[in-house]
Amino acid sequence: MNNFEFYCPTRVYFGKDTHGRVGEIIKKYGFKKILLHYGGGSIRKNGIYDTVMKSLKDNGITVSELPGVKPNPELARVREGIELCRRENTELVLAVGGGSAIDSSKLIAAGTKNDCDPWDFFIGKALPEDALPVATILTLAAAGSETSASAVITNEELNLKRGYTSDFNRPLFSILNPELTYTVPKFHTACGIVDMMMHTLERYMTFKQEAELTDRIAESVLKCAIRAGKQAMIDPRDFEARATLMWTGSVSHNNLTGLGRDYYLVSHQLEHEMSGLKPEITHGAGLAVVFPAWAKYVYKTNIPRFCQYAVRVFNCEMDYANPERTALAGIEATAEFFKSIGMPSTLRECGLEEKHIEEMAVKCTNYGKRTLPGLIELGKDEIADIYRICL
Amino acid sequence: MNNFEFYCPTRVYFGKDTHGRVGEIIKKYGFKKILLHYGGGSIRKNGIYDTVMKSLKDNGITVSELPGVKPNPELARVREGIELCRRENTELVLAVGGGSAIDSSKLIAAGTKNDCDPWDFFIGKALPEDALPVATILTLAAAGSETSASAVITNEELNLKRGYTSDFNRPLFSILNPELTYTVPKFHTACGIVDMMMHTLERYMTFKQEAELTDRIAESVLKCAIRAGKQAMIDPRDFEARATLMWTGSVSHNNLTGLGRDYYLVSHQLEHEMSGLKPEITHGAGLAVVFPAWAKYVYKTNIPRFCQYAVRVFNCEMDYANPERTALAGIEATAEFFKSIGMPSTLRECGLEEKHIEEMAVKCTNYGKRTLPGLIELGKDEIADIYRICL
Repeated sequence: MNNFEFYCPTRVYFGKDTHGRVGEIIKKYGFKKILLHYGGGSIRKNGIYDTVMKSLKDNGITVSELPGVKPNPELARVREGIELCRRENTELVLAVGGGSAIDSSKLIAAGTKNDCDPWDFFIGKALPEDALPVATILTLAAAGSETSASAVITNEELNLKRGYTSDFNRPLFSILNPELTYTVPKFHTACGIVDMMMHTLERYMTFKQEAELTDRIAESVLKCAIRAGKQAMIDPRDFEARATLMWTGSVSHNNLTGLGRDYYLVSHQLEHEMSGLKPEITHGAGLAVVFPAWAKYVYKTNIPRFCQYAVRVFNCEMDYANPERTALAGIEATAEFFKSIGMPSTLRECGLEEKHIEEMAVKCTNYGKRTLPGLIELGKDEIADIYRICL
Repeated sequence: MNNFEFYCPTRVYFGKDTHGRVGEIIKKYGFKKILLHYGGGSIRKNGIYDTVMKSLKDNGITVSELPGVKPNPELARVREGIELCRRENTELVLAVGGGSAIDSSKLIAAGTKNDCDPWDFFIGKALPEDALPVATILTLAAAGSETSASAVITNEELNLKRGYTSDFNRPLFSILNPELTYTVPKFHTACGIVDMMMHTLERYMTFKQEAELTDRIAESVLKCAIRAGKQAMIDPRDFEARATLMWTGSVSHNNLTGLGRDYYLVSHQLEHEMSGLKPEITHGAGLAVVFPAWAKYVYKTNIPRFCQYAVRVFNCEMDYANPERTALAGIEATAEFFKSIGMPSTLRECGLEEKHIEEMAVKCTNYGKRTLPGLIELGKDEIADIYRICL
């Protein structure tokens, strides 16, 4: 096991009716002026907005609002939020939504307290030295951003999607009410399932094997996402399935599933170029396309690992005489599962073709300045090969 | 799944050589005056004391020392620590040791900042409203106190052992270096294995079943404790086994394995009376005696749960026609495992006899003022019945 640091200070309030307590919780922390940051009109339609606003008002919290977060949140909106927070002396940023609203909030919170341009955090030009506290009310089980240290954003001027990690990105508290996800459409539920699986799978598929508890927790997360995922597709109002998905999404990205290992989110990088080019590609859908292709490209470098995955997560029977068959069966089972919940399996289904591959591969190496580590080190040509597998 | 709150803010530094960084870490937090609290001479003999003192000195930290913590730490020593901290204007209490040193430190830290007698926390007369920060360097994988909110202490005047829970008990940071446990004798290694398994088992053996990820993480913890436990008994210097045990001990008691369930640490209460009466009984050894007896007494109230345990944790084959057999096989496998690592299986081996049972049962109900909840509600007579099963 490698040395590691584990830190996950976010206080989680999980369960029914918890979002109606947000005002009381913020008051207990002593904050009086907040920014409420959210997406489109859905939280207004389904009543979440009213419940939250009532709770905030009842507890004497002054609220500025910044709606309009899009999937793959954009820098322009972040800059607007930073100005607003500075003008209003905001003390806390409250995100209501999924990973997009939360990541955008994290960046507003850090940007408000640092003099640089927020994009500087993503290109390694600056690191936040302070930040406003962020709190979240989660409405989508997917990204795990509600307890994670990471934030991802799209620079719409450069068509680039990038992420960065900082302890300042860890929310102060997060409210997870599974009932708020009952109305998430099937497609987005499925994208969320892929997203949470991938956070764990990317940490799991490495060379370094000995991290036994990390492995078993990772396998637990994957099994739960698959079992509860299938159930939520059948009955979107199944509380236990939605609850399992919601908690699984958080655990999958709070780093419990990566401790003691070297890992690198390779498929995430491959996907970022897809949705960087076509922002309408949902993160989970893009990952569902690239992961099986990446796995087929690299699995021979670590057949025992892919066998363990196949056997422990998908209950494949071990073929002791031909382990490669078991390894492949696990990859196939993953691809089948993604398809079964309505995910695309090719670039073409995402509106991408052969002609886009070169550009994506070049950008993915940061114009030749980096290779992607992992089971096989990937340069531009290898990345292009993987994209071609999923054409 | 029940509503729950999850909060585990302790920053964990895990791995080789980490204890030599303690001074640098404390300095980064900005503390200058600390109390170093530890047990007997073992940390002096094995070099841990020197490494820690050097690191503290190199970083300009002023150190008061309070050695002499015993297993089942005592109130008198805690009161001494509180006086010392007040006199020296101590800013942080650093525990070096296992659960005893850590729990004693937690109580010193809280006692210093509150005017009441520290025993008041345990009898519900007062709750801490503030506390000094606590940090730990763990030398025994067992109690999980290094990330938990609980503290347990013995009142030697009353022959009573009691615990209490508070967020102020959560350490600021904990240093977990598995190498520091190489020299732990086999008996205490085994006690630690039982201890960590029991923290999870007590949360697992309940009525409320639906908390899928909690279940699977609990089963992961149990499997790791068993597998790595066996290995550490064979080779005490196996780094991976010691590392798995150390991290498993923390995860088993940071509440990840109890989220979304009603639970109550019944066997812990039964054991507290044993070591309350005979302080030489190690916590883990006492638990190894009472848990199988408790399980045999209650398993018929929830046969599916005991079957799931038997099948998933011990790989017992499910007897679909006679589930009771599978349930019992799991309990037997647990008892066998405890015996195989050198644990006692009867009260008599712990120096307790029929004549002690009445007193323990009476104290366990707090002199008739409470019953123990769980799969069967236990009054004095039921508690005595369970003690008799393990005579």
